[in-house]
Amino acid sequence: MHEILIEEKVLARNNELASANRAALKSRGIFSINMVSSPGAGKTSLIEALAPFLKPRLNTVVIEGDLQTDLDSQRVLRSGIPAKQITTGKACHLDAHAVGHALDWVFGNPGVRLLIIENVGNMVCPAEYDLGEDMMATILSTAEGDDKPLKYPAIFSASDILVINKTDLAPFTDFDIKRARANALKINPGLAIFETSCRTGAGIEALSDYLAKLSCAGRP
Amino acid sequence: MHEILIEEKVLARNNELASANRAALKSRGIFSINMVSSPGAGKTSLIEALAPFLKPRLNTVVIEGDLQTDLDSQRVLRSGIPAKQITTGKACHLDAHAVGHALDWVFGNPGVRLLIIENVGNMVCPAEYDLGEDMMATILSTAEGDDKPLKYPAIFSASDILVINKTDLAPFTDFDIKRARANALKINPGLAIFETSCRTGAGIEALSDYLAKLSCAGRP
Repeated sequence: MHEILIEEKVLARNNELASANRAALKSRGIFSINMVSSPGAGKTSLIEALAPFLKPRLNTVVIEGDLQTDLDSQRVLRSGIPAKQITTGKACHLDAHAVGHALDWVFGNPGVRLLIIENVGNMVCPAEYDLGEDMMATILSTAEGDDKPLKYPAIFSASDILVINKTDLAPFTDFDIKRARANALKINPGLAIFETSCRTGAGIEALSDYLAKLSCAGRP
Repeated sequence: MHEILIEEKVLARNNELASANRAALKSRGIFSINMVSSPGAGKTSLIEALAPFLKPRLNTVVIEGDLQTDLDSQRVLRSGIPAKQITTGKACHLDAHAVGHALDWVFGNPGVRLLIIENVGNMVCPAEYDLGEDMMATILSTAEGDDKPLKYPAIFSASDILVINKTDLAPFTDFDIKRARANALKINPGLAIFETSCRTGAGIEALSDYLAKLSCAGRP
């Protein structure tokens, strides 16, 4: 009981800070995406693959969340996109407070239109922590199960975009893309669904077009 | 500060209950494994693949942890191994309290020698919650990154066994098994490492031999 009250207070405080982040981003015309997935679904690879398409069209920056190491922000930097690492230590998700601090860095980059926040690899806790983003995107790899939307419904409900990634691996797994789509839409009929492969490049341009449109026009 | 104190109390209470679980399991001669991984690394598939090897040798039962649905326990049951589902709702990990309740069911099965507890798919929080198991096993799929041990060190430190799963997919990914082994051993030099593929069956018998020996002889 006591623990639940504390949790509610933590979430309420997080929501306040998220609203402040959202207002600060909006006032500067920056569109933001909170990217979530299991560890290893390919969030960083997706950002690397999107980089050549996004860079010529709109200034993009990345906030990288990880328990430990700056391996992912180093990868993003090598793809030519400015990146700021947040190491969360033992915390299994980013929160609005940590992202708020990183926004000072975001606003120091000139003319940013798109902010991608790569959350800690976790399909549970990030669902509850609003960071102030415009949209949440869940990445699901075809090396996982196509029943994930049913088993982790909160994150699929909280998301606006679903990216089914590693489609090149699908022929070697039991993952059924049609079934995954149906399961996801059962949980959240409003999902915009994309299929991508960072290895073959399939679907990357379509996803970058969508992100570029959102960054210009805002949430549809 | 207040939150940290509450967290410490929660963990201290969990540790007490875990000790009780451990004593209850030991008094009945049951060896137990806490299986953890990202969502989709293949925990349930691994149990299904192990079933034909384990069943003739020792009575095995499974406790299945999931946020929602009994899809995984249904799969385990179809492989001929008794399974009990714990749905955790919003909780991103099993705890000793929930497992303690399920032990009544475990003890109702005759002659059990091995208990496999399949935790919620999450590479962060399960590291902190002792369930009273003898050993923790982390499953890492070759569809994830080989840098996972560096990015999620707590779970690799807490584990005794590392199973590198989906080795059949390795040729189609950038995952380097040697590098994954080296990264894992850097974090935890005491890890017993196995390589498996549930699709080809590679390595499954070796892993079942190891589990059978532990169940007979206890922790080495």
